[in-house]
Amino acid sequence: MSRPGLFISFEGIDGSGKSTQARLLAEALRAQGREVVLTREPGGSPGAEEIRKLVLTGERDRWSAETELLLFTAARRDHLERTIAPAIAAGQVVICDRFADSTRMYQGLSRGDLRAAVDQLHDLMIGREPDLTLLIDIDPATGLGRALSRGGDEERFESFGEGLQEKMRAGFLALAEEFSDRFVTIDGNRPLEDVAVDVAAVAGAHLS
Amino acid sequence: MSRPGLFISFEGIDGSGKSTQARLLAEALRAQGREVVLTREPGGSPGAEEIRKLVLTGERDRWSAETELLLFTAARRDHLERTIAPAIAAGQVVICDRFADSTRMYQGLSRGDLRAAVDQLHDLMIGREPDLTLLIDIDPATGLGRALSRGGDEERFESFGEGLQEKMRAGFLALAEEFSDRFVTIDGNRPLEDVAVDVAAVAGAHLS
Repeated sequence: MSRPGLFISFEGIDGSGKSTQARLLAEALRAQGREVVLTREPGGSPGAEEIRKLVLTGERDRWSAETELLLFTAARRDHLERTIAPAIAAGQVVICDRFADSTRMYQGLSRGDLRAAVDQLHDLMIGREPDLTLLIDIDPATGLGRALSRGGDEERFESFGEGLQEKMRAGFLALAEEFSDRFVTIDGNRPLEDVAVDVAAVAGAHLS
Repeated sequence: MSRPGLFISFEGIDGSGKSTQARLLAEALRAQGREVVLTREPGGSPGAEEIRKLVLTGERDRWSAETELLLFTAARRDHLERTIAPAIAAGQVVICDRFADSTRMYQGLSRGDLRAAVDQLHDLMIGREPDLTLLIDIDPATGLGRALSRGGDEERFESFGEGLQEKMRAGFLALAEEFSDRFVTIDGNRPLEDVAVDVAAVAGAHLS
């Protein structure tokens, strides 16, 4: 019996717990016998990981918003072709930590005039949305505290302060309304086990 | 007295002599007291040179035509923002060895169905053509002989044989017709000094 594949993305502000929830969902589905590909953006394929390095390291003004958008889209195209699409075609579940909604939110927020270009570029060169997007919604102050406690050398998008975290949260909630056919918002201000139960229930409903 | 800038591109098949002609024109204009920026694609700015490395090295099927197109467009955007536009704004002459027409020709030739996407992507993220494009037109067999005698590790686009060289020549001639407002075709099957005289005359007419 061949099962249909499913493409699930997780979105949320930094420190929302979405990466943890993506991992827990992958583990839960594997325990149920599903084949799962757990991946993330930017990156997720060998070529896209190289583009990720090019975008996320170096000086903050190394690339303009437009060039950065093109590089992210190139990475997404490679990720979709080499990792996501083949797995879906093989009936697997793809769980992706961030996808195009993160680009809509981050690029749209830093350069609101670019949102139309983001959408046109997506339609032209990507043309695929997740079947289900789980937005892990969390209090911005809590998220910022978690994100800062992690550190690392890819902090460019995480070093902007609480005011920006609040704008990002609002941006994601607006996307959840815009794409209400595939977005499900989950309250992330709870113990991660409780959040995981909700995540598994929503994903399960799409898989049955 | 401030002079207006000018953006000149050179196009032609591999081995056409366009890079030599670009250099000779730069030298001639500098000798006349013009400030000239001699640049090339892919590359032409520090960021674009890094993207160039990513695209032109490695296995031939490392990137799909679509991903390659996005990477070339990212490089072109960076090159335009950081090198070309500031020089034009400062009243300099920019001489560029290949620009968007090379993408139209190469991507369109290997994947004819992509030509529409190439144009849409250009309009969306680049939106600028050269003021003058000099097509150095040469016999494909001669061009191939010259290109192969050079060697180097970036031969991916030069190792396809004479049949493809002929198609490329036809592709450039078709572009010269499509964009006849800015294209001038110059016979490159002559001693390079003679070709350089014609190039200087055409460029001079645009600069006076």
